[in-house]
Amino acid sequence: MFDVEHLIKTALTEDIGWGDVTTESCVPPEKNIMGEFFAKEPMVVCGLFILQRVFDEICKRYGDAQVVVKPRCKDGDEVRAGTILADVSGSARAILSGERVALNLLQLLSGVATRTREAVAQIAGTKTKICDTRKTLPGLRVLQKYAVRVGGGCNHRMGLSDGVLIKDNHIAAAGGIANAVSAMRDSIPHTMKIEVEATTLEEVLQALGAGADVILFDNMDNETMTEAVRIINGCAMTEASGNMGQKDLREVAATGVDLISIGGLTHSVRAADISLKFEVSPKSL
Amino acid sequence: MFDVEHLIKTALTEDIGWGDVTTESCVPPEKNIMGEFFAKEPMVVCGLFILQRVFDEICKRYGDAQVVVKPRCKDGDEVRAGTILADVSGSARAILSGERVALNLLQLLSGVATRTREAVAQIAGTKTKICDTRKTLPGLRVLQKYAVRVGGGCNHRMGLSDGVLIKDNHIAAAGGIANAVSAMRDSIPHTMKIEVEATTLEEVLQALGAGADVILFDNMDNETMTEAVRIINGCAMTEASGNMGQKDLREVAATGVDLISIGGLTHSVRAADISLKFEVSPKSL
Amino acid sequence: MFDVEHLIKTALTEDIGWGDVTTESCVPPEKNIMGEFFAKEPMVVCGLFILQRVFDEICKRYGDAQVVVKPRCKDGDEVRAGTILADVSGSARAILSGERVALNLLQLLSGVATRTREAVAQIAGTKTKICDTRKTLPGLRVLQKYAVRVGGGCNHRMGLSDGVLIKDNHIAAAGGIANAVSAMRDSIPHTMKIEVEATTLEEVLQALGAGADVILFDNMDNETMTEAVRIINGCAMTEASGNMGQKDLREVAATGVDLISIGGLTHSVRAADISLKFEVSPKSL
Amino acid sequence: MFDVEHLIKTALTEDIGWGDVTTESCVPPEKNIMGEFFAKEPMVVCGLFILQRVFDEICKRYGDAQVVVKPRCKDGDEVRAGTILADVSGSARAILSGERVALNLLQLLSGVATRTREAVAQIAGTKTKICDTRKTLPGLRVLQKYAVRVGGGCNHRMGLSDGVLIKDNHIAAAGGIANAVSAMRDSIPHTMKIEVEATTLEEVLQALGAGADVILFDNMDNETMTEAVRIINGCAMTEASGNMGQKDLREVAATGVDLISIGGLTHSVRAADISLKFEVSPKSL
Amino acid sequence: MFDVEHLIKTALTEDIGWGDVTTESCVPPEKNIMGEFFAKEPMVVCGLFILQRVFDEICKRYGDAQVVVKPRCKDGDEVRAGTILADVSGSARAILSGERVALNLLQLLSGVATRTREAVAQIAGTKTKICDTRKTLPGLRVLQKYAVRVGGGCNHRMGLSDGVLIKDNHIAAAGGIANAVSAMRDSIPHTMKIEVEATTLEEVLQALGAGADVILFDNMDNETMTEAVRIINGCAMTEASGNMGQKDLREVAATGVDLISIGGLTHSVRAADISLKFEVSPKSL
Amino acid sequence: MFDVEHLIKTALTEDIGWGDVTTESCVPPEKNIMGEFFAKEPMVVCGLFILQRVFDEICKRYGDAQVVVKPRCKDGDEVRAGTILADVSGSARAILSGERVALNLLQLLSGVATRTREAVAQIAGTKTKICDTRKTLPGLRVLQKYAVRVGGGCNHRMGLSDGVLIKDNHIAAAGGIANAVSAMRDSIPHTMKIEVEATTLEEVLQALGAGADVILFDNMDNETMTEAVRIINGCAMTEASGNMGQKDLREVAATGVDLISIGGLTHSVRAADISLKFEVSPKSL
Repeated sequence: MFDVEHLIKTALTEDIGWGDVTTESCVPPEKNIMGEFFAKEPMVVCGLFILQRVFDEICKRYGDAQVVVKPRCKDGDEVRAGTILADVSGSARAILSGERVALNLLQLLSGVATRTREAVAQIAGTKTKICDTRKTLPGLRVLQKYAVRVGGGCNHRMGLSDGVLIKDNHIAAAGGIANAVSAMRDSIPHTMKIEVEATTLEEVLQALGAGADVILFDNMDNETMTEAVRIINGCAMTEASGNMGQKDLREVAATGVDLISIGGLTHSVRAADISLKFEVSPKSL
Repeated sequence: MFDVEHLIKTALTEDIGWGDVTTESCVPPEKNIMGEFFAKEPMVVCGLFILQRVFDEICKRYGDAQVVVKPRCKDGDEVRAGTILADVSGSARAILSGERVALNLLQLLSGVATRTREAVAQIAGTKTKICDTRKTLPGLRVLQKYAVRVGGGCNHRMGLSDGVLIKDNHIAAAGGIANAVSAMRDSIPHTMKIEVEATTLEEVLQALGAGADVILFDNMDNETMTEAVRIINGCAMTEASGNMGQKDLREVAATGVDLISIGGLTHSVRAADISLKFEVSPKSL
Repeated sequence: MFDVEHLIKTALTEDIGWGDVTTESCVPPEKNIMGEFFAKEPMVVCGLFILQRVFDEICKRYGDAQVVVKPRCKDGDEVRAGTILADVSGSARAILSGERVALNLLQLLSGVATRTREAVAQIAGTKTKICDTRKTLPGLRVLQKYAVRVGGGCNHRMGLSDGVLIKDNHIAAAGGIANAVSAMRDSIPHTMKIEVEATTLEEVLQALGAGADVILFDNMDNETMTEAVRIINGCAMTEASGNMGQKDLREVAATGVDLISIGGLTHSVRAADISLKFEVSPKSL
Repeated sequence: MFDVEHLIKTALTEDIGWGDVTTESCVPPEKNIMGEFFAKEPMVVCGLFILQRVFDEICKRYGDAQVVVKPRCKDGDEVRAGTILADVSGSARAILSGERVALNLLQLLSGVATRTREAVAQIAGTKTKICDTRKTLPGLRVLQKYAVRVGGGCNHRMGLSDGVLIKDNHIAAAGGIANAVSAMRDSIPHTMKIEVEATTLEEVLQALGAGADVILFDNMDNETMTEAVRIINGCAMTEASGNMGQKDLREVAATGVDLISIGGLTHSVRAADISLKFEVSPKSL
Repeated sequence: MFDVEHLIKTALTEDIGWGDVTTESCVPPEKNIMGEFFAKEPMVVCGLFILQRVFDEICKRYGDAQVVVKPRCKDGDEVRAGTILADVSGSARAILSGERVALNLLQLLSGVATRTREAVAQIAGTKTKICDTRKTLPGLRVLQKYAVRVGGGCNHRMGLSDGVLIKDNHIAAAGGIANAVSAMRDSIPHTMKIEVEATTLEEVLQALGAGADVILFDNMDNETMTEAVRIINGCAMTEASGNMGQKDLREVAATGVDLISIGGLTHSVRAADISLKFEVSPKSL
Repeated sequence: MFDVEHLIKTALTEDIGWGDVTTESCVPPEKNIMGEFFAKEPMVVCGLFILQRVFDEICKRYGDAQVVVKPRCKDGDEVRAGTILADVSGSARAILSGERVALNLLQLLSGVATRTREAVAQIAGTKTKICDTRKTLPGLRVLQKYAVRVGGGCNHRMGLSDGVLIKDNHIAAAGGIANAVSAMRDSIPHTMKIEVEATTLEEVLQALGAGADVILFDNMDNETMTEAVRIINGCAMTEASGNMGQKDLREVAATGVDLISIGGLTHSVRAADISLKFEVSPKSL
């Protein structure tokens, strides 16, 4: 599992700064409360493991404070509006000071997972998979890509160092697709595949001839992609790319491509609506 | 101006890792290219100053590489589809390796500014202002709040340490609104105002009586807010809050509130569509 | 409560470097000792919560080491010479290696709190409050400002981003007090007040007219301040500033100002005299 | 020269946070100003090299901003009240935003250097030297110890890893002075000397017999120290320690000790009074 | 190119601490010197680009200091004893203080490149390649793997997140090779290949049947490997592994494997012998 | 004990990146395993305390995972091939993901300790000691110097700030040995000794006359060193330096020098051969 310690510290420092002046003035240190994270709309839940880590980190600031989070479901569950996702109990100060950061992360990730699940559902029954891109929110890529997996999608490469994608500028600089692929074979770890971007059938043929492991169809129409898939005939994986968020995914899948990559899964996000409500209304205490 | 050095380094490390294997294999170090960032849809531009800093940072990795960015417009400009936002020229390696991070930031911030400008436009002509919340993307708050300002909105407090917002749990713990406000007055810097959340007219009256500087109307209907504004009569600022993203903002503004705060400006973002295209098609080189 | 983890790590690394060569050579790892932090002069105690954190951090370096600190009083207590402030027991190596850093922090903060309490005492019975400034020791501001609060003083803004103070250069650049205040109102979060510096009664009137929330009297004599307070008549808060550390604070308070800010509370510090003595004289062991 | 980059960044982040709201609202980015750092009281100047670095760091935040500092004297100079220490010119925003951090550092270090010079002057003409201790302000040790050198004093060890000082607890744990010294000889780099703390003449003799390179007289009266120096007869260096800040240093020096160590040089500081005034009064612009 | 800034800062802080006491006492700040890095034995040079970066970093500490490094050869060159690798000139303080760190890095990397070139030379003329492993020196992996490439070898995966290697424990936990490979296919980015470790021909057949992209022969004798290569018949890449540093590499290559991975390229290093000598003997100055 | 937290985090991040894709796909989170670290060749063990810390750090990433390491011997023990060094049990995921980093550190340090012990053994029975240098692997100095001590060697200074070594360039710049030593005496802490490098008997005499505490014989032949030791006659410590790794150490020791410093102890390392094997063969599960 990835390391979220640094991100959580950054998020807490960003929000809390040198202290939560309101809570520290109004809430005595020994007070405890209980609450529930619950879904205010249908969603695919994602990020539950983060809640305990956020409160653990904030408890360090409050000395002896303790907070316990008990998830009632697990990442990837599809839940209805009103579902309780997790119980939280312990130090009122720590819970109130950490609530916003916990929710901001949970809502973001559940939003990404939900959006991904919708795309996956649209092509259910086909052999095609939905995958993400490098169009992510700065600093949040690993978590967003985790949410894509939780939503049922696949990950494209994490970044520029763990995967090869030869685009038009690389091809031009290397002097053609064959040269570019050949240059890569000599320099990359043997554990990586080579993916080549193609915009025409001619380029598809060149990529195939050069031995590309994966061929990305860049902004091709569905007819061309169908033909390209036929030509490739399983000798390379195929990926449809380019404004896929605006297209009919079933029609794209019908071309027979292996993967449809959608930048909008991660570059545009709609936070899932989640609240933390307290079990006994605090005002009546 | 805020310090973006750490964020840019984080974003670059996240994307580039130990190197851009494709570019370093295909593109010779001495090659230069020229390109243009251009808008593919109408938008409010935001984040142009970041471009140079991203490429400066990446040039450090490539030793002697140089990249120059020349903005053609400025943050806050409303531009049409097809508008060139900035020219970039210099090391092909540095530009190709930094392109994605530069675009991810520019698209995110322009998306937030555009969304804010739309909300501001809806209530044009009223005295009411649009403001943001703490519902931001972890690690990106300062930049997102900058984009809100660029879009014409106002900022709420940056975090828990630079502003007071007394909510129901604080009130319950402190033993009532009057006690909570009084506790705050004794402990916070005199440069901060005190804002109190109210859900009913009775609570509005209590907050007013306690000397709140700002009163937040939490999920009140428009009629109640109108009445509350009348009662307060300028003795405190007023803020409408709660699912404002789903409401008719003109109707909310008609209640006379000073501020409408919208979490959706920042917790949900639609990336503005921006591309980097190269002036001479590299394939024809 | 603020995050002291980074400061404590910095202080320990600064002092211990790669190891405490003396202790590690002379003291076996399994040896335990008990000691008492005690006041060698009268003081206001401040910083007790830091002791446990210093020893916790240093115990991580020594593997299995354990140290327990039990405070016998609490931050803000006025104690006489000879008072035991806290007991400490556990790993001799950890206690001896961490003793200096623990004392350096406790003595610094108790010194600030004591100095503040003296100033507060001088104006006891008046409605005027003592507050601090941004003239703090680099890296130690949050802790020093905490010590001011513990000593009975108030905090001015924490820094340049969480409060407004319009000084002569800002006024000149903005084209007058009215322009400066107006520029601020349009750009800052609504949770912040606006404070304006004035050196003459004419400037006081301008600040008042511009709607300043707080007016700072910069190096005014007591007569002028008395007149200024009379003119302002409660329509803005008032702050006396400028070499206040050298003045008769009762006379300043008699002018009716709300706040007296003293840089010397934090830019100049006299460490409170505190020792850690070991209960059984180690030499007789 | 030591690395102050991290400290300056910490100090600026602490003060400026996400931005200087006042300056950014009131002062246009293209405005330039000129000013002078000048001494408001007699002092030994220390820390001039830091000024340029503070403004360089802050200029990074303001994009194209430039600030130039020209020192008119050098670290260690004794100056009279009214002396101009350095000229500063350039971006008004950068200078106004960085002024406080620059002054806080310069005043602190000049205060330490001035205090040290006073102690050195008291024992002028003797062979005894003034030295510092590990009783420093957390995070500022290297700079404070530099100021002690600038003031004419000597440095004791920087921390626990670069020097040996065997105290009573070490002696007890090791089973006597001879054992402790012997344990050290076997474990430390040969580039370090061994210093032993002694409270009685008997312990002095033991330390001498054990081959200590330096013997620290802990809270001895002057008569005993005189006798100890006579006994040691140059076979080890000698250091007088314990409340030296409250003693007549000439009388201590008369005992013949090589070093007098004073915690108060660094644990208690009086900021030197320095201002930044602008050459043309900005209000008249 | 990878980011070496953090490593260089760590190395300099580790060596220089708060200052180079010897150089700062003996060498005046304005003094310049010239020197030459030269090879004292035959070697493959690697790491020349680091020299300028080390001196740039150290010059920041010395304020105005400037150092210029001019390489006379390039990474990957095979040089004879006595060859001058680079000229260095500029601030004597900066060069003397940075010399050790610069040499430590250059000698380490040239040692790894030289060792790799020797292994590559042993199998010259075959189609087999030499590759590295994850058995690297902590904190130095990216640089060591760069040196392997410079020496003519290939890189295996950089770490656990950018490549798949299914070992015996993974197979056991997943319930067999087929299950393990299938589990991987569903979860990893499509840009990664799947490598499976096999110790017997039966396992080779299972891996082949499961669709492994690469098969690692773990401690197989040459006869078995020859047979395995024959069976695989180009349907997967093959890697020989296990004490390869102690074997006759030509005989291993004769089995027909694609790759021979050698931990000893990086876990055991012999520093190449390089000195920095000054052109005019300084003693005669 | 030194702080290894940062190094371990760096090593784990370097190896694991955003996750161990193989282990997380194949091994269920609840699975536990037991294993043994064992020596595959004779060695001096060093670094056992690091094992638990590596697994503790990695367990943080895996949420609830627990791993317990039980050492069966202690740092400094000489063990035979086949000796079990430590048992490890707990979370299979954590153990498999952390295995490589744990081994890389343990093998490196045991390699250094073993190499040192061999050198120490060669001069057994003499009064001469083996010591290390600043020729260490960047980022690993403190650990490597610990391994030298564990192997029976002594440490030279840790770096440039905690010891003095006046070399030819310093002497030239200062205007001779006497000047250089005198300059040092005035500026360094009194806890440091002064070491001077000499290449001829004349320089030895100068160093002695200048009051050097330690004299380093730089690349002298054994006859000259014997004569130098005779001349010095105990008035300074003596260190033999220069390609000592290639010399007959007994003959060097026979010259009577106090110390022989060997760069090869740390700049060139041969990893000790250690494996982690699992007690129940996982394949048979």
